Amino acid sequence: MVGGGIGAFIGAVHRMAAALDGEIELVCGAFSSDPKKSKASGEALYLPSSRVYGNFEEMIRSEQKLPEGERMDFVSIVTPNHVHFGPAKMALENGFPVVCDKPLSFDMSEALALEKLVKDTGLLFALTHNYTGYPMVKQARAMVRNGELGKIRKVVVEYPQGWLSTKLEDTDQKQASWRTDPKRSGIAGAMGDIGTHAENLAEYITGLQITELCADLTAFVDGRLLDDDGNILLHFNNGAKGILHASQISAGEENALNIRAYGEKGGLEWRQMEPNSLIIKWLDRPMQVLRTGVGNLYPEAQAHTRIPAGHPEGYLEAFANIYRNFAICLRAKLQGKEPDPVYQDFPTVSDGVRGMQFIQKVVESSKSEQKWVAF
Amino acid sequence: MVGGGIGAFIGAVHRMAAALDGEIELVCGAFSSDPKKSKASGEALYLPSSRVYGNFEEMIRSEQKLPEGERMDFVSIVTPNHVHFGPAKMALENGFPVVCDKPLSFDMSEALALEKLVKDTGLLFALTHNYTGYPMVKQARAMVRNGELGKIRKVVVEYPQGWLSTKLEDTDQKQASWRTDPKRSGIAGAMGDIGTHAENLAEYITGLQITELCADLTAFVDGRLLDDDGNILLHFNNGAKGILHASQISAGEENALNIRAYGEKGGLEWRQMEPNSLIIKWLDRPMQVLRTGVGNLYPEAQAHTRIPAGHPEGYLEAFANIYRNFAICLRAKLQGKEPDPVYQDFPTVSDGVRGMQFIQKVVESSKSEQKWVAF
Amino acid sequence: MVGGGIGAFIGAVHRMAAALDGEIELVCGAFSSDPKKSKASGEALYLPSSRVYGNFEEMIRSEQKLPEGERMDFVSIVTPNHVHFGPAKMALENGFPVVCDKPLSFDMSEALALEKLVKDTGLLFALTHNYTGYPMVKQARAMVRNGELGKIRKVVVEYPQGWLSTKLEDTDQKQASWRTDPKRSGIAGAMGDIGTHAENLAEYITGLQITELCADLTAFVDGRLLDDDGNILLHFNNGAKGILHASQISAGEENALNIRAYGEKGGLEWRQMEPNSLIIKWLDRPMQVLRTGVGNLYPEAQAHTRIPAGHPEGYLEAFANIYRNFAICLRAKLQGKEPDPVYQDFPTVSDGVRGMQFIQKVVESSKSEQKWVAF
Amino acid sequence: MVGGGIGAFIGAVHRMAAALDGEIELVCGAFSSDPKKSKASGEALYLPSSRVYGNFEEMIRSEQKLPEGERMDFVSIVTPNHVHFGPAKMALENGFPVVCDKPLSFDMSEALALEKLVKDTGLLFALTHNYTGYPMVKQARAMVRNGELGKIRKVVVEYPQGWLSTKLEDTDQKQASWRTDPKRSGIAGAMGDIGTHAENLAEYITGLQITELCADLTAFVDGRLLDDDGNILLHFNNGAKGILHASQISAGEENALNIRAYGEKGGLEWRQMEPNSLIIKWLDRPMQVLRTGVGNLYPEAQAHTRIPAGHPEGYLEAFANIYRNFAICLRAKLQGKEPDPVYQDFPTVSDGVRGMQFIQKVVESSKSEQKWVAF
Repeated sequence: MVGGGIGAFIGAVHRMAAALDGEIELVCGAFSSDPKKSKASGEALYLPSSRVYGNFEEMIRSEQKLPEGERMDFVSIVTPNHVHFGPAKMALENGFPVVCDKPLSFDMSEALALEKLVKDTGLLFALTHNYTGYPMVKQARAMVRNGELGKIRKVVVEYPQGWLSTKLEDTDQKQASWRTDPKRSGIAGAMGDIGTHAENLAEYITGLQITELCADLTAFVDGRLLDDDGNILLHFNNGAKGILHASQISAGEENALNIRAYGEKGGLEWRQMEPNSLIIKWLDRPMQVLRTGVGNLYPEAQAHTRIPAGHPEGYLEAFANIYRNFAICLRAKLQGKEPDPVYQDFPTVSDGVRGMQFIQKVVESSKSEQKWVAF
Repeated sequence: MVGGGIGAFIGAVHRMAAALDGEIELVCGAFSSDPKKSKASGEALYLPSSRVYGNFEEMIRSEQKLPEGERMDFVSIVTPNHVHFGPAKMALENGFPVVCDKPLSFDMSEALALEKLVKDTGLLFALTHNYTGYPMVKQARAMVRNGELGKIRKVVVEYPQGWLSTKLEDTDQKQASWRTDPKRSGIAGAMGDIGTHAENLAEYITGLQITELCADLTAFVDGRLLDDDGNILLHFNNGAKGILHASQISAGEENALNIRAYGEKGGLEWRQMEPNSLIIKWLDRPMQVLRTGVGNLYPEAQAHTRIPAGHPEGYLEAFANIYRNFAICLRAKLQGKEPDPVYQDFPTVSDGVRGMQFIQKVVESSKSEQKWVAF
Repeated sequence: MVGGGIGAFIGAVHRMAAALDGEIELVCGAFSSDPKKSKASGEALYLPSSRVYGNFEEMIRSEQKLPEGERMDFVSIVTPNHVHFGPAKMALENGFPVVCDKPLSFDMSEALALEKLVKDTGLLFALTHNYTGYPMVKQARAMVRNGELGKIRKVVVEYPQGWLSTKLEDTDQKQASWRTDPKRSGIAGAMGDIGTHAENLAEYITGLQITELCADLTAFVDGRLLDDDGNILLHFNNGAKGILHASQISAGEENALNIRAYGEKGGLEWRQMEPNSLIIKWLDRPMQVLRTGVGNLYPEAQAHTRIPAGHPEGYLEAFANIYRNFAICLRAKLQGKEPDPVYQDFPTVSDGVRGMQFIQKVVESSKSEQKWVAF
Repeated sequence: MVGGGIGAFIGAVHRMAAALDGEIELVCGAFSSDPKKSKASGEALYLPSSRVYGNFEEMIRSEQKLPEGERMDFVSIVTPNHVHFGPAKMALENGFPVVCDKPLSFDMSEALALEKLVKDTGLLFALTHNYTGYPMVKQARAMVRNGELGKIRKVVVEYPQGWLSTKLEDTDQKQASWRTDPKRSGIAGAMGDIGTHAENLAEYITGLQITELCADLTAFVDGRLLDDDGNILLHFNNGAKGILHASQISAGEENALNIRAYGEKGGLEWRQMEPNSLIIKWLDRPMQVLRTGVGNLYPEAQAHTRIPAGHPEGYLEAFANIYRNFAICLRAKLQGKEPDPVYQDFPTVSDGVRGMQFIQKVVESSKSEQKWVAF
């Protein structure tokens, strides 16, 4: 693991998600750019000190030298955006598959370079757009793909949060400080942090691609350097229209990623904060509430559910689905087998490139007087 | 009453709303452009045949001749859009106050003419943007006005319906046929029918005004002549940003007018289909669910509530609040008194003019390659 | 109307409910036992002073003398429990049909006398168990009757309120004072006031009859003379088991009448505070949320709906359904016609007798050391 | 681990819960009474074959012989009820702390023997009444304990499931077969399986104890040998009254453990299927919805939350809280330290004894003609 030292948020999430199914074991790490902090973090995680490294270069070089079967099987990168590219590149170049947090990189050129490297090395690369790991998201995708809702006409995806309503980056809140800093986060703030999740979710569920967009980004908090709110009109490749809005100044909102998609026959609604329900509204029939584990769901949903209906599964379980699928595919590959297609389902480097393009186009559109920017 | 014959929807709503509080009595009507149908409708409403008229001109002329105290006190106009102007103009010119369904008129020039006429005659004129009649909408407005949420930064107002997902206008569904017909509805479909409600609600609650917009309207159903869906980016006069979307092809949606507004201190959420709840989310405190009739609400909310908490009040009660306030103000005026300010609260001809401008600007923006259109 | 003077709650509800559909007009009243207050109330309701009476005896005698077609068509009784019997008896004896608030009477002997009188006179008598007026309650009943849920096994009906959590009867709160006074309310407090609604609703929806019960009533507030809370185990005539609990000290609850009934094939859930939804849970299929006005509901539900889906109908509309059905049946009777069976649906004097028996048995059981009391 | 072989439900839950926080590692197991199945299960869990045992006796004896630091630190027992006592007794007698699934044992005498053994050995013993592990349950408990709701008057706890609506035990569904078999489950069915969870939750949150009860148990499914439904009236030691109902024939219900408790100042409501919300209703103030991770919650709630607000935590995370607290206390004990009191919070053998008494009294009461049975 690269990053995720004491005090980090997403590193702990990755560790819990990876540990949940007993398929992945944390064996080494470079948890901080501060070697002392890295050591302390590794100790707290019960790692032998020999495998807690001062930086990712050391980690990759040292692990590389260990005999097969002892060395790490892949690298998880859980650092801020500007430290994705370095470890990812080096890991791939040294033959290690990668799980990387989103967005893929600091800028577009890094993204394209990584995509090329993944293609060239043939190594597995997972990007943790974790919200696609929820069983009911997979059910939604399968329903659309199987035409149950008819041709999709309209998509509304939204991701309001409120935690950056004040200038939190002026305190020592670690999460806020790098996310609002153009040197570490890139050209976008909220749009990179959560807007890309919304974009990825919309395309994942509908199977459509955004072709044009019209964006209106704002930094509401005085002195903030990157957008903390954005409203975007969307055109999709099948003629569908849509809206994406994401915000970190929607005061009082927690983490309200929601999506609605309407087809010719019916509509779906999924809300991340009540993730085990998928609401299906029909033109002429009563609304249905599909629930994780209830009734005859698609195999894609069933395969990503761990416990019986009514025992709520949450964010960590969805996140763990990314890791578990990655692990299943990695093992199959090592064993020269083809994994069950139901598990060949995790976001890849190409999703990451698409996300970086989204960031670029949104920022470009927001500055433009022209209505539509092609995507 | 003008319009609202057998088979009409909104006419019956107006009658129930007007009757609810025992303050208004239906005394006469021209219920249909077909005199026979008008007669039959009047009979079904227990009116004496002498006061059921063949058309609105006859009604206004005849009632005019009745002695004061016997003749109608005001006129309700519940016809399709293209038949608002005629009866409204004639009523005002003959000294009758008017309650008119929305949108105000067929086009902008009619709207401005009516506004002038109202000003010149000094007569009361109410426009039934009925959603502002809900107690919790009034509570929301009062909270914003009193600064409880801080300066408003973001507004999301949405009005999805699904009933026009198919080409209903090709059947003999009366509601669908005129709403999708440019000759009767005007230049907009969904935007005129429900988009104006959303615009009115957003401005009513926030006390802000839209200054710029960027619209993307679509007619999704093949062969439909007017928009059945629209997505709009908004700029407000205090710097707030927003989104308005309205749709009649959001398959499976009933009548889901919803609004969220976020200020510097907190956010509010109100959903028309569960109108007795107002959700307030705070930056650092637990979310509150304010409920009609519970606790220490603003007088504006209390004055528009009829029954104790937990006895749900709905659409008709909110609609009746428009009528009741109109009646209270009318009576006060006739008696030369000033009505209690809490009841001087119903949408006026100026709200109607603003709605017509909204329609015009939205249609203009949708056709434009330019991003922002001033409003 | 008997009762319902200024300051009363349920009188105003009856008037709004009766007025809503334009089928019933308030023509006279004895609004208070205090003649002055009765006059003032009548004036505020725009009644001619000649038809505002000092007491119900005067009202019935005077109206009796008016020519047919001018005199009142029926009497509404909206007084506290101890003043139901007198006016109801006199009205029936003088040929006037009756609409009476619940519970039917002060005690069992009055109830039986009224039932006999209704039978002997052949006059219509409606009891306002208004919650059975909701469209989705009628849908629930029709679904059970048509076997959609299979044989019913378990029923949970609950009616928590919190408004009597403190000794409100020591203030001058009119509603609290008579409801907690054995001289005006009878032998039960909460059980008479709201427990009977729960009992009526459970039997109405399931079509079953309670045959045995085991009750545990409590007066939690110090010095209160009647129960303010009760928990009851139920046995039904088909072998189903159940629970009924009602409370006026469930602090913070508004008017949360809810029912769940489970059959061999599925279960239903209806919540009065969100009355336009009926949740149906199936053994092996996704949950459905049936909504007023959506899809192919039973005629019983459709006939009691006034406005399109998504325009919420509430308490007053449900209450109005009782009045409207009564009016339709009364008119049919006067015209010697048989009313459409879908409208022959309002609670009768026999429901009232059953409610009084429920009160009696519950109080008896609560005092008993024996587990089951036959009902 | 004892039990939890391939195909079991709760064994996998225990493993995921134990693994989540990286504090506990599965090192050995006797996963099935069938040695072959045990081996296969161990292999699937990546255990070395030397530490996969044919039965629990072998496991305990063998591990006992391993040097300290290598042998297992405690035993998890995840077998059906009739196989709790044997391994628990032997583990304790050999110096191993125990985590045991609920209910504690097959019958009362076993329960008391275990309680004595725990006392005599001084070893830690956790019972997985996992629902008390939810952060908002801990918040609820803290609020009651701190008097925020005033003296508790009424408690309604319910646990409806529907999965045993048909005779599932006649199929080869493993979960159904032992739960409905008196030889493996004990004297109660639903009451032992889920009724004890409800009892435990009610006492945990309110801090009260049930003193009397009146039960009505039923086996609705033809030929079923144990209760599949039960309704119970409760008396608590402070004078509060309550209801507990649990059911496995509430068709369509998933796992709907819910509790409401009403005090003199306010009421609380928590629903297991939406576990991150705690609804607080006040006498005179707006309802609040407390949310995991939002605002100023009690330390007890905060300490059992892993991720930020709006990232839903579910069943496994709550279950993991039991394991993590057990691990923290165990480590502290081994290190001779006193653990932070906020983590000294998991159900113990005494909760288990109380649960067994509950089962016994409920069954006794259900057979009795007498109303109240002392508890």
